[in-house]
Amino acid sequence: MNFKIILRALGFLLFVEGIAMILALIISLVYNEYDQYAFMISAGINILLGLIFVFLTSHSNRDIGRKEGYIIVSLVWIVFSFSGSLPYIISGAIPNFTNAFFETISGFTTTGSSVLLDIESLPHGILFWRSITQWLGGMGIIVLSLAVLPVFGIGGMQLFMAEVPGPTPDKISPRIRQTAKTLWFIYLGFTLTETLLLWLGGLNLFDAVCHSFTTMATGGFSTKQDSIGHWSSPFVQYVIIVFMFFAGTNFTLSYLAIKGKFKRMFKDEEYRYYRLFVLLFTLVIFTGLVISSGSGIEKAFRESLFQVVSIMTTTGYVTTDYLSWPPFLTIIIFALFFFGGSAGSTGGSIKIMRIVLLLKNSYYELRRMVHPHAVIPVSFNKHSVDSKIITNVLAFFIFYFLVFAAGVIIFTIFEPDLKSSMGAVATALGNIGPGLGNVGPAENFYHIEPFGKWFLSFLMLLGRLELFTVLVIFSPFFWKE
Amino acid sequence: MNFKIILRALGFLLFVEGIAMILALIISLVYNEYDQYAFMISAGINILLGLIFVFLTSHSNRDIGRKEGYIIVSLVWIVFSFSGSLPYIISGAIPNFTNAFFETISGFTTTGSSVLLDIESLPHGILFWRSITQWLGGMGIIVLSLAVLPVFGIGGMQLFMAEVPGPTPDKISPRIRQTAKTLWFIYLGFTLTETLLLWLGGLNLFDAVCHSFTTMATGGFSTKQDSIGHWSSPFVQYVIIVFMFFAGTNFTLSYLAIKGKFKRMFKDEEYRYYRLFVLLFTLVIFTGLVISSGSGIEKAFRESLFQVVSIMTTTGYVTTDYLSWPPFLTIIIFALFFFGGSAGSTGGSIKIMRIVLLLKNSYYELRRMVHPHAVIPVSFNKHSVDSKIITNVLAFFIFYFLVFAAGVIIFTIFEPDLKSSMGAVATALGNIGPGLGNVGPAENFYHIEPFGKWFLSFLMLLGRLELFTVLVIFSPFFWKE
Repeated sequence: MNFKIILRALGFLLFVEGIAMILALIISLVYNEYDQYAFMISAGINILLGLIFVFLTSHSNRDIGRKEGYIIVSLVWIVFSFSGSLPYIISGAIPNFTNAFFETISGFTTTGSSVLLDIESLPHGILFWRSITQWLGGMGIIVLSLAVLPVFGIGGMQLFMAEVPGPTPDKISPRIRQTAKTLWFIYLGFTLTETLLLWLGGLNLFDAVCHSFTTMATGGFSTKQDSIGHWSSPFVQYVIIVFMFFAGTNFTLSYLAIKGKFKRMFKDEEYRYYRLFVLLFTLVIFTGLVISSGSGIEKAFRESLFQVVSIMTTTGYVTTDYLSWPPFLTIIIFALFFFGGSAGSTGGSIKIMRIVLLLKNSYYELRRMVHPHAVIPVSFNKHSVDSKIITNVLAFFIFYFLVFAAGVIIFTIFEPDLKSSMGAVATALGNIGPGLGNVGPAENFYHIEPFGKWFLSFLMLLGRLELFTVLVIFSPFFWKE
Repeated sequence: MNFKIILRALGFLLFVEGIAMILALIISLVYNEYDQYAFMISAGINILLGLIFVFLTSHSNRDIGRKEGYIIVSLVWIVFSFSGSLPYIISGAIPNFTNAFFETISGFTTTGSSVLLDIESLPHGILFWRSITQWLGGMGIIVLSLAVLPVFGIGGMQLFMAEVPGPTPDKISPRIRQTAKTLWFIYLGFTLTETLLLWLGGLNLFDAVCHSFTTMATGGFSTKQDSIGHWSSPFVQYVIIVFMFFAGTNFTLSYLAIKGKFKRMFKDEEYRYYRLFVLLFTLVIFTGLVISSGSGIEKAFRESLFQVVSIMTTTGYVTTDYLSWPPFLTIIIFALFFFGGSAGSTGGSIKIMRIVLLLKNSYYELRRMVHPHAVIPVSFNKHSVDSKIITNVLAFFIFYFLVFAAGVIIFTIFEPDLKSSMGAVATALGNIGPGLGNVGPAENFYHIEPFGKWFLSFLMLLGRLELFTVLVIFSPFFWKE
């Protein structure tokens, strides 16, 4: 194990976090609020620690192996969440350490569950910091899932990524650096465009920036207590719907679209199912809302579309409390907790591609029952899918299900209400934000016991890193040479 | 499609059902109660119909293909449940058709969910009929899963059955007839032994026979409103625990044990996990009960062991209302809804072997992440398991999960309480009996709306026939030549 390269990578990333804190410091200085010193101290600590780590390891061997990769990826989110909670604690915005850590890891993992009881009373620097933690987290996930993880052969998703090179032996190639840069550029472009549109829609520049950050990351932190429900403007809500949808789309497809290759984008099988699922669930909920409440057609349509896209992309914004809907519609929203965005997007949860492969394999298994000797491989995007990828996707699903089930059982100790427990665990694991029952859209996570908060924090990390990356580190064989 | 052979098989089985009704008629005559005419008429209809079907098809082609197999297996349970509900309706014990059908299919699928509000007020013939429907259902399942289904290559379980020949082309061989006979003999032997022991334990002969029928079938119908809780005798409860455990064991293993090959039985991998799971869950619940209630050690042990074995084998008897336990323990019981007995037992649900294969494959997938080029096949009973079987088991799990999730969403229309809805769907699909919330051990299914009862009936059938058998018939490709 090359511990030096791990330390070096962490040092570099702590430095980046320090720079982000300086951005928040600038906001704080502009508004001249009480959180200035908190950001100065936090940024100082991060940058200093980062430089020390990098300096100490300047003569180290630069080879990153598979195992080092897993450890760096898992550690980054943890280290970031510890050092990222400093501004909250030092400024007194969230004086309690457990709460501050929960809010920070919920940010970096782009979950969006909050412990804040009165968001609007906070200084602008802190609100900006909350938003930028999500934006950085989302950025990290895109780079990780589209550029870094395929190199380590994780998830078997690399076969479907047109723009990403195939598995190469244990080193990050210059080609990957190029891909990562392109993706960052698209991410930034989307964020700026959304900011502009929200600004035009009547938000002040600060709110527009913060919400663009948390939309593109499918994060869901808002600067308002009522989330997007704060703005009744249909234009603002539709803009956010569109950008949540983009954020849940594979970023290499967006890259193709920007290069004018719309046909290739629209033909992509995962994208086709993504559109189909959004449409289908919106229609069901829209019909249900119109029948049950008799509210206006446009409003019912907008509310159902907003909630479906928000939950399916794992953003977690709300414009209405879906727990006040008829139980049948609420449970459909809960089912969406297990969908997630496309592979290679900032969305979390199981993800469309995996769900489609699972459904296809099951259907093909039925066909094999009638024609047991026929060879019928599962196909995706007109290529037949290797059985190893199917087994991997199935194993992922089993782990997801197991972690969910075990999580609910354990969490019942802190939250005896089964519905609330299921909602909390599913929302943490899927990096969504709001849950069911006591942790629904109109509630928050403040009242959960400390141990429960640490437990949910762990689930957020597990979900964000697609289970395998974290679980493999806890396996005994990982540490054997 | 050879419709004549389908009709012939159904005719033969209707005749068998008619004979079972004559047994109930004899009980009714002995006790001289009001249900005599109901059994005379029902038995007459069944035997007559059966003879007509067999007579009409006496010159038919005897070849049973794969497709005919699927249809016969699915139809038997449906036809049996229709004709089996006649005694309830004609006698007036359950005058409502939907309720009578629900009670009958709950019997034949060995589920054990009931619509009866006052079981003890019913005549003995009817109580006997309830019990024998389960006994017949259990017998059918053993023959089906150990002798018939492997021939059709269903479930991939045949590789592990020492005593069953491998897949042969589309005909039931004389060897299978022999196996089926042996299994029936064991089933009958266990039933007689349990009857004797329960009789010694203080039950009257009638109750002893009825409970032996429903124990060995992992059915769970009781002649008493309080189920096994009616008898406080530890001896009686332990006898039932032991026989529930036997009923949840692969019957070919019991055959080995009877032939004195205990070592081979104890070394069997599924059996080892089965013992382990029972022990583990009993210990957890026992500890929880002792801490939370402070009740007597022996009683707490017996209650936890009883409920664990009863739910895990999908029997569904109760000695105490597990919903009155702390939420943490109740949810563990709910987790057991998804375990089930061993393959080749009368138990339903997912089954131990599948769970073990799923866990193993997931663990091996983690290892493949560290050593991606190593070939590590999943092994079971010291044989490496073909990847086709793994894919099949995984597809089964996905279907089970999908049917459960879709079932809960649909059932929420009839039962808005999420917990009750989950309990009802899980207990029907797993052929268990009691559920959660409004359908818990102290409640029953009488208050469910008619459409909800039909829906649960369908789920019982789906679960009992291991999903594939029924789902394949609904697939469009099944009906293409």
